Amino acid sequence: MQRILSDQLTRHAGDTVRIAGWVHRRRLLKSVAFLIVRDAAGLAQVVVTDPAVRATVEALPEETVVEVTGTVVARRGAAAEVAAATASAGVELTDPAVRPLGPPAVPPPFDLYRPLLTAGLPTQLDNAPVALRHPSRSAALRVSAAAVAGFRAALDARRFVEIQTPKVVASSTESGANVFALDWFGRPAYLAQSPQFYKQLMVGVFERVYEVGPVFRAEPHDTVRHLAQYTSLDAELGFVTDHRDVMAVLRDTLAGMLDAVGDRAGAALATLGVDLPAVPARIPAVQFTEALEIAGGPADESDLAPAHERALGEWARREHGSEFVFVTGYPMAKRPFYTHPDPARPTYSNGFDLLFRGMELVTGGQRLHRHADYLAALAARGEPVEPYAGYVDAFRRGMPPHGGFAIGLERFVARLTNAPNVREVTAFPRDLHRLTP
Amino acid sequence: MQRILSDQLTRHAGDTVRIAGWVHRRRLLKSVAFLIVRDAAGLAQVVVTDPAVRATVEALPEETVVEVTGTVVARRGAAAEVAAATASAGVELTDPAVRPLGPPAVPPPFDLYRPLLTAGLPTQLDNAPVALRHPSRSAALRVSAAAVAGFRAALDARRFVEIQTPKVVASSTESGANVFALDWFGRPAYLAQSPQFYKQLMVGVFERVYEVGPVFRAEPHDTVRHLAQYTSLDAELGFVTDHRDVMAVLRDTLAGMLDAVGDRAGAALATLGVDLPAVPARIPAVQFTEALEIAGGPADESDLAPAHERALGEWARREHGSEFVFVTGYPMAKRPFYTHPDPARPTYSNGFDLLFRGMELVTGGQRLHRHADYLAALAARGEPVEPYAGYVDAFRRGMPPHGGFAIGLERFVARLTNAPNVREVTAFPRDLHRLTP
Repeated sequence: MQRILSDQLTRHAGDTVRIAGWVHRRRLLKSVAFLIVRDAAGLAQVVVTDPAVRATVEALPEETVVEVTGTVVARRGAAAEVAAATASAGVELTDPAVRPLGPPAVPPPFDLYRPLLTAGLPTQLDNAPVALRHPSRSAALRVSAAAVAGFRAALDARRFVEIQTPKVVASSTESGANVFALDWFGRPAYLAQSPQFYKQLMVGVFERVYEVGPVFRAEPHDTVRHLAQYTSLDAELGFVTDHRDVMAVLRDTLAGMLDAVGDRAGAALATLGVDLPAVPARIPAVQFTEALEIAGGPADESDLAPAHERALGEWARREHGSEFVFVTGYPMAKRPFYTHPDPARPTYSNGFDLLFRGMELVTGGQRLHRHADYLAALAARGEPVEPYAGYVDAFRRGMPPHGGFAIGLERFVARLTNAPNVREVTAFPRDLHRLTP
Repeated sequence: MQRILSDQLTRHAGDTVRIAGWVHRRRLLKSVAFLIVRDAAGLAQVVVTDPAVRATVEALPEETVVEVTGTVVARRGAAAEVAAATASAGVELTDPAVRPLGPPAVPPPFDLYRPLLTAGLPTQLDNAPVALRHPSRSAALRVSAAAVAGFRAALDARRFVEIQTPKVVASSTESGANVFALDWFGRPAYLAQSPQFYKQLMVGVFERVYEVGPVFRAEPHDTVRHLAQYTSLDAELGFVTDHRDVMAVLRDTLAGMLDAVGDRAGAALATLGVDLPAVPARIPAVQFTEALEIAGGPADESDLAPAHERALGEWARREHGSEFVFVTGYPMAKRPFYTHPDPARPTYSNGFDLLFRGMELVTGGQRLHRHADYLAALAARGEPVEPYAGYVDAFRRGMPPHGGFAIGLERFVARLTNAPNVREVTAFPRDLHRLTP
């Protein structure tokens, strides 16, 4: 008999079926026992009255893997857990045969069947392989997978080509700081902080490219929004007029990501109690100096502090009904050397950030595309060309005006699901303190 | 006027349009000049008769980025390059205005407009940002992108969930050898050789998972089929009976990958002159000892040498008309400690390889799923449990019988496109000698 998943049970009323999964919970009442089985699709309730079967169930602790064969019937009463899991609501399995598919599990250090994980985050992270089984944790990862699928679909539809680039490089991408050094067959090398250089070079090949991959930042500080490895959703496109063309593609990409989350992870959103925000047809955009004013920052600031970003998020919601707001024209001094200046005001850049609910989610902008401009930009910063030679040299070969952006996946999912810490939406986070599991 | 791509020209006969791209080639004849423009979609021919425009074109070396406005007309004669590019065959642009979008390009060290790249592979790799612009090189990367899209689509359709896992780990995944060591905030760490442990742990969460990501092998040898960073297409699924369930999913995944290559990269296949192989409904499978016999290897061998794999590839084509062949039941001694033995013959494994045209392309198998079996397997190999504690411990928490596979993306694309060296289908390869560009 072919195994079916819990969300297929309602279609099999009256049939004898086989399900399999984990013992999510047992409720051993006097005259009857309920066995709640968790599988990839949700929860299923099994009603046990036979004393021999009950004895089997009593010997199978939570998280033991079991197979249950039984008859699907309309439910009489519902255990609270199943009532919450809409998948198999309304039916249950009766007259079951229960067979373990492995030895009895050693119960985890926290109860997975409770609506909320009561263990603190460090305990959850120490025990990630089981903590991630909790519906709230796995739901966030389903949202994450759906968001990535939406990112790719939106860009595929716009003729972007997916690329894979090196994660080990001979010189650091963004600056000398915060890089992980390693030994590459006896030579010094570094983990890539971003695919920035490579995605730009690939604009010369495909015009429009994207990459989904890990990036590494040796962040020495321990915050709720920084990870030492995170997943960067990178895109870059050529033949733009300026950064506004990039912002338009980003807007459509975000809309595609949210659509995909709604389409592919609807049940996960329900588990998390999350409503999707709308992406305005035109996301409000404020120029940096204006943004500082709105946020009440001093006029001589050259960057936005987290408090400013929060204030701007409030402003965008209040004034524009938008969860998203662009800040454009950051001062050149605070942007990387490959940033294109604003031709009208060269101390400001054609670089932008996108804030989502008051947190920086995306960084992007127009890049330099002329070889001479790269030489001048590095010289102005007192940086040698040599470490960047293979990159800078490519701009002698004909590169169109171009720009791009990078979305931090974990930040996006955390903001979307109201998780206060990016580690709650990361399967196995890596940070200053954490290298296992 | 909105820019259009070269493959949209035929729909605009009689119109004045704007295109943009790279100067692919100039043919300066006596009475007329032809300018071939390359963009993301292919090539377009521009006919220049006006002396002033001709002077502009003469000053724009190959690879300069240009914008051309002109009238689309049915073509009279065809430059050979465009005849080969079906996209805009039949039309050309006349009465053009030509405007450079950047300074004149410095011509690359090899001609990109010739049908074949004449430079040797090392020169191509040293100049990857321009070499990849050659239609043969970019076509292979388009095939690669399509193959990855097919991998994901096939598994999405089978309810697999995409995951992102750590690329920096506290202990090596497969064995102590061939790992890159790095300094993680003062602690020793390693680049992950595979997502093996993490994808197994995530079977406990989602039952079925996949990941597309970089893996790192400090391969000390320099061969045409090894890279120090490659893209691994990993899948893992729970509730299997044995490795044959895994092989069935792999078969369908490969078929999905090839379908996607046909659907999404048809023009790239034409450029490369490649016909897609068929994936048999049932890929022939031979047991390891039988495979050795077929390949003429000595009966006491415990692994297949490359020559054996080639002989098996020939055999599968000859006897079964299949480009693919499974070898099952490798000796346990040659498989990693997490491999599930064949219950009927415990010195042989439920592990398999898939050979594609005589080269190992996929490794997979059923894994151990009982905690006690992990302890015994490590003890039998004289390996301590401690470095694997976080992984092995998870098997106390209830894990279903499971298995999976890993496809090497670059090998797949190289075999598919008849590239003799995986570096030819890798944008920026990393190996023993190469860390740039």
